Order: sequence, then C-alpha cells, then structure tokens
Amino acid sequence: MIVSYVGTNYHGFQIQSNSRTVQEEIQKALFTLTKEHIVIHGSGRTDSGVHARGQCFHFETDSELPLRRWSLSMNSQLPRDIVVNTTFEVAEDFHARRSALEKTYHYTINNHRFIDPFYKNYELHCPIPLDVDKMRSAIHGLIGEHDFTSFCSTNTDKTDFVRTIYEADIITDTNYSSKFHIVITGNGFLYNMVRIIAGTLIQVGKGNRTVNDFINVLEARDRKAAGPTALAQGLTLWHVKYDSKYIL
Amino acid sequence: MIVSYVGTNYHGFQIQSNSRTVQEEIQKALFTLTKEHIVIHGSGRTDSGVHARGQCFHFETDSELPLRRWSLSMNSQLPRDIVVNTTFEVAEDFHARRSALEKTYHYTINNHRFIDPFYKNYELHCPIPLDVDKMRSAIHGLIGEHDFTSFCSTNTDKTDFVRTIYEADIITDTNYSSKFHIVITGNGFLYNMVRIIAGTLIQVGKGNRTVNDFINVLEARDRKAAGPTALAQGLTLWHVKYDSKYIL
Repeated sequence: MIVSYVGTNYHGFQIQSNSRTVQEEIQKALFTLTKEHIVIHGSGRTDSGVHARGQCFHFETDSELPLRRWSLSMNSQLPRDIVVNTTFEVAEDFHARRSALEKTYHYTINNHRFIDPFYKNYELHCPIPLDVDKMRSAIHGLIGEHDFTSFCSTNTDKTDFVRTIYEADIITDTNYSSKFHIVITGNGFLYNMVRIIAGTLIQVGKGNRTVNDFINVLEARDRKAAGPTALAQGLTLWHVKYDSKYIL
Repeated sequence: MIVSYVGTNYHGFQIQSNSRTVQEEIQKALFTLTKEHIVIHGSGRTDSGVHARGQCFHFETDSELPLRRWSLSMNSQLPRDIVVNTTFEVAEDFHARRSALEKTYHYTINNHRFIDPFYKNYELHCPIPLDVDKMRSAIHGLIGEHDFTSFCSTNTDKTDFVRTIYEADIITDTNYSSKFHIVITGNGFLYNMVRIIAGTLIQVGKGNRTVNDFINVLEARDRKAAGPTALAQGLTLWHVKYDSKYIL
C-alpha cells in the first residue's frame, strides 16, 4: 500500500507502547477489515511529526477482499489524517524496506517574514532571508557515494554510514516564491540525515557557514561538524521507488 | 492590513455575538496593542469555514506604533491561524469595502479518488471524475457584465444583482494534477455567488448539466435554476485590488 499521512499528531510511523503511531492506526484498520492480527512492514520509520506522501508498507493476509476494494475499505476505517492512495498485490519476495531502490524526501522552508497559517505544520518557518543559491551549491556537493557519518544522529545502531545520493537540489515552490523545497533522493538515509542536512544548509543560507565548509562537513565524519537537526515538521517522505517486477 | 486566515475554526469574518469570528480576534489583538476599542472594516464578509489569503481591512487609530512594527506586533497577539502579512498607512478617504476595485476568489477541487489529508480543510473533495474542459467552457460564459440573480442566495438584502466578471477560468494545480482551482475575478460578488457557481460547474463536470444549460442559468434570474451551494471549505478570498493612490 502507498499511504499519505500528516505526521503532526503521531509519534512517528513505527508502533510503540503508550504513543499513537501511524503503524498502529493502520494495523487497527486492517484488523477491523480482516479480523487478522496483521503486522505491516514499512519502507522505513518516520520520526514524530514527520509527514509522508508516498510511504509504502507490505503485509500478508488471507483475506479474500478483492484488490480494488482495499484502499477505499481502509480509508473508511482510518483517521482522516492517514490515507491509503493505492493498493498492489506483490510478489512473495517483495519487502517494503529491503526491496526499496530509492527514497525521496522533501524538506520545505517558508522564508517569508511571517508564518503561512495554512501550511504551518508542513514547513519550517525561517524569517531570516536565506541565500538559496548558496544553499543549492552546497547541497550539490552531496551527490554521489559518501560516508554520511557527519549527517547522522549519534543515537543510531547503524554501522555502515555510506549512502549514495542520486539527486539533491533546491526547488522554489511553484505557488509561493518565498518557499522552497530541499529535494533529496538516495539509496538510503541514516537516522535524522535529511533533517541534519537541512539544518546545516540553513546555516549556509544565513551566511553562518560557507559553501566550502558545508562540503568539508562530509570529510569530518563527525556529527559535531554539522549543524543542528532541523524541525521534524518540515520533512516529508515523498516517494519510495521499487522495481515494477514485484507488482503482480 | 492584508490578512490571511484559515476559516475552519471561525464563524466567518464578521463579528457576531456568541460565535468566534476573525474580526473579533483581530479587534482583540488591536485592543491589546493600543488599548483603543477599534472597529475594523473588511473588504467584505467571508462565510463560516471560508478562507482568505488576501483579505483587507482598515481602521483608525491614535497609536504611535511605527508602521513597520504593526504586522509583527499583531501576529504576536493573534491566534496562529490568522496572520497579518502587510500593513499600510492609507489616505483618509480609503475604505476597505468601498474602495475595492476587484476581488479574486479561488475555489479548489480535489478530484482524486481519495481525500488529501494535508489539505482536506482547504478544498472540496469530489471523487467522481470531472470533465474540466467542459467546466472551463461553461465558466467562460460568465465573463462580462451580467445579472447574477441565479447565482445569489435568496437569503440576501441586495437589490442590485448586476456584477462584472473580469476573469473566470479553471487552472490545474501546479503540484497535483488531480486538483484544480476555479479562479474568478470581478468588481463584486453576491452572497454565496462563487460557491453557487462552483456547485453548478461541478454538475457540468459530472455530466449532469450541459455547458449550454450552464449559460442559460444566467438568463433565468432565478436561484432555483442553478445548482447547489458548494461547501465553504473549498473557497478562499485570494486578493482584493485597490488603487495604489490610497497608500501614503
């Protein structure tokens, strides 16, 4: 299933005791539909407050509900801030996390003097004018295969910090000239990686860090070399890419 | 002042007893800043649940707060779903309603099969596929000076139903191909006029009414000839145009 959710009212995607999570809501809806205790497998976690437009998860079921009925049936059970967009039947060897080829994230910054009341939970508000051209030069330096230790929260159990970034750019919003989106596509992302990249880029935009210094952060392989972790609310998991061979 | 607000949690713009309104919140903020009991004058009302990105209002004050400080000071007092974008000092003879030359409204329709959880309060969800080309042909017929009695709620005290529409079109959203915006600019609008136009256009889009029939609704000068009033949540007062001569 491909699912969109507004992360504002959830403690992230992954199920946990004592907190409301997206996974829990989805599993509750699946139980209502199937009476099976289904565990879903997401393409990855998203943190508390992070949004998704193209999160993917898979699960197994004995239900005989026809494929075309699943999305609507799920949406009739889910809270209105979680929406299943599409349901596919996939091959036995498909795994939402392990089969993922690429992920794309958007980090949205509103650089207007005041907040936008319509999108205040979906973007970071930065009233200080940012030099977007410098930020764009900086982020281009991330393209390729690199050790991203500097852009990974120290609170991680990962041991391999090498990831490949296929696309990294800054796109001005088509509707609002004071807003822009950091768009980044890679074969995988470390814990808090996009948010630390965003927080460090904002330092470049403010003039507190040079483009060269941003590039050098990678070399340092030290979380302390990078800037702060930008707020969760600006981040959206935009798209997860899979090989179409898995779709039955 | 030019103000944006999310109308969802307000009983419209205009102040009334026993209901939360945008005008009341603005006047409360003005009282906090000035200790004056200021009455503001809007460019016009917006209904319960209708949004604004470019609503304008004027007021008089003896406050000596410098012009450049007003917007930020207001935003520090206002609830986060009402934002003052700009403050101008205007000529004595300026009146936010009477001086308005043109108003532009957007009515947004999400024609995807499922709701978009991010924007669910800012658009009308119509899961039935709409023929946007037919809707566009129909709305073009509104351009010019017409008697809009058919597109006015009967619950009105107006006696002159002639208005001039300068622009009327349907624009596909730049980010989401399943969404479009009915954009309409005129010298004035009757009560519920844009929402009745939207409701009637949706009938055209669904194939329940022909383009010719839509044009004929104008001729009928009868509210019963038009379609239903579309939901308030899809409507946004986008822009109010004034002569720049009023800005001091």
